Amino acid sequence: MNNGEGETSYAKNSNIQRKIISATNSRLKEAILNIMCNNNNNKNVPESIGVADLGCSSGPNTLMVVSEIIDIIDETSRKSGISFPELRISLNDLPGNDFNDIFRSLPSFFHKVKEEKGAENCYVVGVPGSFYGRLFPQKSMHFVHSSSSLHWLSQVPLGLGTNNAIMSSLNKGKLYISHTSPSDVINAYVSQFQNDFSTFLRSRSPEIVPGGRMLLSLMGRSSIDPTIEDGCYYQWELLANALSNLVSKGLVEEEKIDSFNAPYYAPCPEEVKIAVENEGSFMIDRIETFEIEWDARVSSNSSEDKILLSRGQQVAKTIRAVVESMVENHFGNEIMDDLFSVYGDLVDDYIYKKKAVYVNLVVSLKRKE
Amino acid sequence: MNNGEGETSYAKNSNIQRKIISATNSRLKEAILNIMCNNNNNKNVPESIGVADLGCSSGPNTLMVVSEIIDIIDETSRKSGISFPELRISLNDLPGNDFNDIFRSLPSFFHKVKEEKGAENCYVVGVPGSFYGRLFPQKSMHFVHSSSSLHWLSQVPLGLGTNNAIMSSLNKGKLYISHTSPSDVINAYVSQFQNDFSTFLRSRSPEIVPGGRMLLSLMGRSSIDPTIEDGCYYQWELLANALSNLVSKGLVEEEKIDSFNAPYYAPCPEEVKIAVENEGSFMIDRIETFEIEWDARVSSNSSEDKILLSRGQQVAKTIRAVVESMVENHFGNEIMDDLFSVYGDLVDDYIYKKKAVYVNLVVSLKRKE
Repeated sequence: MNNGEGETSYAKNSNIQRKIISATNSRLKEAILNIMCNNNNNKNVPESIGVADLGCSSGPNTLMVVSEIIDIIDETSRKSGISFPELRISLNDLPGNDFNDIFRSLPSFFHKVKEEKGAENCYVVGVPGSFYGRLFPQKSMHFVHSSSSLHWLSQVPLGLGTNNAIMSSLNKGKLYISHTSPSDVINAYVSQFQNDFSTFLRSRSPEIVPGGRMLLSLMGRSSIDPTIEDGCYYQWELLANALSNLVSKGLVEEEKIDSFNAPYYAPCPEEVKIAVENEGSFMIDRIETFEIEWDARVSSNSSEDKILLSRGQQVAKTIRAVVESMVENHFGNEIMDDLFSVYGDLVDDYIYKKKAVYVNLVVSLKRKE
Repeated sequence: MNNGEGETSYAKNSNIQRKIISATNSRLKEAILNIMCNNNNNKNVPESIGVADLGCSSGPNTLMVVSEIIDIIDETSRKSGISFPELRISLNDLPGNDFNDIFRSLPSFFHKVKEEKGAENCYVVGVPGSFYGRLFPQKSMHFVHSSSSLHWLSQVPLGLGTNNAIMSSLNKGKLYISHTSPSDVINAYVSQFQNDFSTFLRSRSPEIVPGGRMLLSLMGRSSIDPTIEDGCYYQWELLANALSNLVSKGLVEEEKIDSFNAPYYAPCPEEVKIAVENEGSFMIDRIETFEIEWDARVSSNSSEDKILLSRGQQVAKTIRAVVESMVENHFGNEIMDDLFSVYGDLVDDYIYKKKAVYVNLVVSLKRKE
């Protein structure tokens, strides 16, 4: 993610992720209602509720999730005629996330929350660390949420990292799985996802109370075959094409593209089901997919963009805010402006010809009793 | 506090605070041993131990406290033949603190801790907020630590703030209580401390388990009379003199000094006792004072300083790292270098003539059962 609040920052270019959070709101409500009204052995509302947002990032979306959770708890409490319960909110992301930015916006946010909802009992903490490992104490969580994060693998698929020169360049001219990818590459991606997602579930299992819930939304795909042209990989395909364009201009070495493999995987529902069943401590309540247009916009603050930038350039900004630091690390800082400008043009061509949508996977899980 | 890692940062100029932490190590050990071996109704070691460091700041001292706590728990666990318990560590400071800096140093710190101590069960969170208010869930803490923070009041004493022109300029030529301060000023300081310290205790009371412990160290004084010349106020006296010097050079307006009152109070043991007794939920186990020289040094990283800077200039750097942002806010950024240079000279004169020591107050408290 691009930190800060500049023109290319994630904070200013996270409308897609915001739209995804909004789209899963009804599932969020279901999960929390379930915890509050039908928890453990049908007892009453827990006195203290632990919730976590994994991969919270920084920027407007971070507090949007928190705000929605508080609204649902507030509404449910009022309807049940009880006072707002103690709410322990954990905001998690990698240690490099801009937690200072979140923390500095908390006082005014909570001042408002306390005035409007009488929610005096909210405690917010920042939890730095990878969700592919333990984050929270035993049985401390009632609800775990993660949006637009779990498609990021813990690492470049094993064997495809740049320290393995032969394997890493197998995926010629591509940055992610493509229809040209050899089976070794596809298998490496599939196994890395299964390993990572299992590690994720195994890490959450002791942290969540029996009957507790998880709501996970991540980039996914509809088809079982990962090489079928799909939004989940075509964004990488076009980024590879943009890089190839810079190769022809002498700005990028071809081998650099061959040796980059994105630590990303967009699973199909079946793959998620397999991982959940194998790990064994969660039940899938629902698993759904929904489509979202590449250039979906929701109440952008930056109305200037809508006038000055093409749809493709706007998509490029959204992608840049997320992948730049990673891509820059491999290809160098100097080509970033050129790269995302060419990328924007390619996206424009693509969305003119095709229906360009991401498939989003939404998984509701219950911790077995 | 000055953020970052620059020449005037708190991270590079916090040796005094480090020395204070070291000096209270035996009390830290006592408190933790007490929790582990003699907790609640003489049961065994708690399965999960909650500890908090209030006013943790950022820089080397933050993880020094955490490290000492882990060492004591590790040693005690080994001696008792039990495995390392689940340890929930909360690092608290105001939302403006540089939590990013702490979080980025955690992975390597915990890698080492886990390798050396087998302490797999440590969970660290950042808790932004004022300790003059609730910070943690009900009964979640076994041990609360705070070092070199509680002498900072929640605000400029009521009535002495710059919004009250008559009262605020009562303390002519001074920044804190002095022998020339009228009784209105002294009373405002005394009441603000009593209010704040009571709020502090009242906020911690529901958060700490019965039998839980607090160890607080803060700047204090030995004498009941706050106007008797003492290290606790003479640092402010000299800063006021340095500002007066700049008045004579036309760099500062005299009224600016009159209208500044530091949100600081160095209590005597009796005042702490009164607040604890009035609040009622804690017992004082021990209350001690110890002296520490203004220019106390412990293994400074910056050996260059020792050669190039006078003792007074070194003291000035320590004070600057702590008070600059506050003083700058009132007097303007442009005079800071001059101010702390003159201040350093005045400190040199002072420590040549007098025994210049801070009095540190160390209070060990137990949450009543």
